[in-house]
Amino acid sequence: MKKGDRFQQAFKVSDPVYRGFMDLFKDRNPLHTESTFARQKGFASEVMHGNILNGFLSYFIGECLPLKNVIIHTQEIKYSLPVYLNDQLKFTAQVEDVFESVNTVDFKFYFENQAGKKVANGKIQIGII
Amino acid sequence: MKKGDRFQQAFKVSDPVYRGFMDLFKDRNPLHTESTFARQKGFASEVMHGNILNGFLSYFIGECLPLKNVIIHTQEIKYSLPVYLNDQLKFTAQVEDVFESVNTVDFKFYFENQAGKKVANGKIQIGII
Repeated sequence: MKKGDRFQQAFKVSDPVYRGFMDLFKDRNPLHTESTFARQKGFASEVMHGNILNGFLSYFIGECLPLKNVIIHTQEIKYSLPVYLNDQLKFTAQVEDVFESVNTVDFKFYFENQAGKKVANGKIQIGII
Repeated sequence: MKKGDRFQQAFKVSDPVYRGFMDLFKDRNPLHTESTFARQKGFASEVMHGNILNGFLSYFIGECLPLKNVIIHTQEIKYSLPVYLNDQLKFTAQVEDVFESVNTVDFKFYFENQAGKKVANGKIQIGII
């Protein structure tokens, strides 16, 4: 991998993903589960859990890179717009820096929804092990 | 919530959590699934997915705070030691700042394993909605 390399991947926040995440981690906050509550707070409907996107990031790092001997060192994410059930997200990551002396690679990434709006962005640093 | 408030929560990276995370997000990187590969890379056995910890954070924010009208704005995490299957993690979060004018609360957090070693730490900013 070298600076400027770009990767793209499609992810859907399907009903099985939404329900599976709640079954696994038990976060049933009303923002995620009660449409009336979510609408009172100014959202169109139940807001999907932001950390579903971090699960997609796990898949990207573990499965979509051209090498498998990787581990995540650090990651950060900023949520800018709500994600709703059945949103189709386009994920884009770009290599920002490669530090060969310490075997690390820095990425910037963002997720866009089907309307082309950026819903989240962040950074991730991996180690080559 | 006010500056200095502390919260603690126990989480176990049980087999259902580990397998459920892989079923959900399909990250079957050999570091997470092949003990031989993990040992070749210097780990004691398969390393658990770091983003399982972010799922625990979702539960903490959504379910463990004294108020439910919250949403995550940003989060970052640094992984410092590997987490293994059946590790019992103690999560600690502390309120770092409360910004009443914009209804946000900043936390620092860390996860320790059963040996008292810090395995990950980070920051999270939530909005009160």
